[in-house]
Amino acid sequence: MDTRPKIEEKFQAKFMVNFIAKMPVWPDPKDPRLTEHVTGVDQEGKEVGLAVTVERPLTLFLNGREIVTMMTICDYPEYLAIGYLLNQNMLRPDDDIVAIDYDDEIETVVVRTKNETNFEEKLKKKTLTSGCAMGTVFGDVMEKFETVSLNKEATIRTSWMVALFKAINTAPSLYLEAGAIHGCVLCQDDTVLVYMEDVGRHNAVDKIAGYMYLHGIAPHDKIFYTTGRLTSEMVIKTVQMEIPILVSRSGFTAWGVSLARQVGLTLIGRAKGKRFIALSGQERITFDADLDQIDDEPRHVSRKTGKK
Amino acid sequence: MDTRPKIEEKFQAKFMVNFIAKMPVWPDPKDPRLTEHVTGVDQEGKEVGLAVTVERPLTLFLNGREIVTMMTICDYPEYLAIGYLLNQNMLRPDDDIVAIDYDDEIETVVVRTKNETNFEEKLKKKTLTSGCAMGTVFGDVMEKFETVSLNKEATIRTSWMVALFKAINTAPSLYLEAGAIHGCVLCQDDTVLVYMEDVGRHNAVDKIAGYMYLHGIAPHDKIFYTTGRLTSEMVIKTVQMEIPILVSRSGFTAWGVSLARQVGLTLIGRAKGKRFIALSGQERITFDADLDQIDDEPRHVSRKTGKK
Repeated sequence: MDTRPKIEEKFQAKFMVNFIAKMPVWPDPKDPRLTEHVTGVDQEGKEVGLAVTVERPLTLFLNGREIVTMMTICDYPEYLAIGYLLNQNMLRPDDDIVAIDYDDEIETVVVRTKNETNFEEKLKKKTLTSGCAMGTVFGDVMEKFETVSLNKEATIRTSWMVALFKAINTAPSLYLEAGAIHGCVLCQDDTVLVYMEDVGRHNAVDKIAGYMYLHGIAPHDKIFYTTGRLTSEMVIKTVQMEIPILVSRSGFTAWGVSLARQVGLTLIGRAKGKRFIALSGQERITFDADLDQIDDEPRHVSRKTGKK
Repeated sequence: MDTRPKIEEKFQAKFMVNFIAKMPVWPDPKDPRLTEHVTGVDQEGKEVGLAVTVERPLTLFLNGREIVTMMTICDYPEYLAIGYLLNQNMLRPDDDIVAIDYDDEIETVVVRTKNETNFEEKLKKKTLTSGCAMGTVFGDVMEKFETVSLNKEATIRTSWMVALFKAINTAPSLYLEAGAIHGCVLCQDDTVLVYMEDVGRHNAVDKIAGYMYLHGIAPHDKIFYTTGRLTSEMVIKTVQMEIPILVSRSGFTAWGVSLARQVGLTLIGRAKGKRFIALSGQERITFDADLDQIDDEPRHVSRKTGKK
């Protein structure tokens, strides 16, 4: 049985569109459903105990159609479902969502729309011809990508970055608790609005996309932070969400850079402590931090794989 | 135009089944197709140049059916195609592969089998009922998972681990060249056999699976090393490949641990330098390394995101 307060109850509305969200949202590493304690041995054969993140399968349906089974920590299945469908371009902003039904016993979430979606139409045609439609999603997504126009007035200050990285890295999180997890953070100026974690970085992004959509949060003045790499997929999702600035602790791929430049996304990578490299959209950066007065990221908050 | 020597020519055989592979296979970070030089600015606004990994879309077809579009560095599209299909349980060892056609201009790889595969049959039924079949793959994979029996006699020595980690971390690689990439390594005893890299860790695994299948390499005495996290998916793939020992630099998820224990896979995580934690199948480990005589991993080879 799912004992979480129903999102509907939390926000006193059947759906969350146009209702003001309670922000900031921080990770809740103490939620007992999210980690498990296990024991094993170390390099000397000595018994050791540690906390590990719990991942669960979640099968997503759009109306009567099974879309995908995802592995997720399942803290926000409704946001994940909506964000996934939006970022895959399977759901469009004008589709009228009438229900999001999560059932934790059978591990499913069903998104229902008033009318059949454009994606379902396409899928129907597709399955009659060459089969599975997952491959077509890519083309659709690229088509939308080319039509997005990002806010040119948005800005990011290097002093904000220093403050954000510190806030994100020192906040209690599943990462600090158990490791092996990605984080994504929606920010405005030097402030964290929504910090989501998940076993896959795409789930974390999708949860934020779902949150923004359901609470009607404007993307144009936001900054998106991720612990994951700046691949083409990450760039495409950020652009789909119409957020003008993407920042990551991790590195770049060439296509990620090329797509970001094509659409004028500000792309900042290898961002830790006071350091970063920007490879696209540098004109949105204001260099106002006094770097000599700021220390490098201390080693104990350094986000490494495999160490707490 | 694809200027790489055709795999067929390299191995003097139409297909590579039962032909001895040239091992070890190491990354080729100097291959000009795999990285690109870009310039940007750092935290002080100073111009900086760096190498970034190139990712390309590759659309996979099984006979006439479009399966998926993957983002890959595309160094071994044929191995990737076969490994993906095997690990998704879309292709079974008894399916008779008659061609693997890679076309770099239209970015497709087509795997052709003599007869229609069981997966295609299922897909046909599925599309007539509830639509896209990607969701069904999960159930099929779990079904196979439960039937695998891993070699109980396989062993891993702590001294081998020390040697392997050193060899892997100091070998020239795309990771050291450009970062933002995952690595997977097939090992035997203290020796590296096949080291593959890719933008997604699953691609790197799949390329090794394809390599093993096409060259008829036995899995039962091998060790699988990955830079990625030990999630359920990673455990399932290793078990599908029938490799009894899985080692990672990164951390664990609870379901990864639980699946490994269920099937008796040796699961070693947070493995760096001389340190590790084993959470399943400890009986295959021989603690023979003299740890006092071995240094910790030097910081410069430490695999961090975002730093060379």
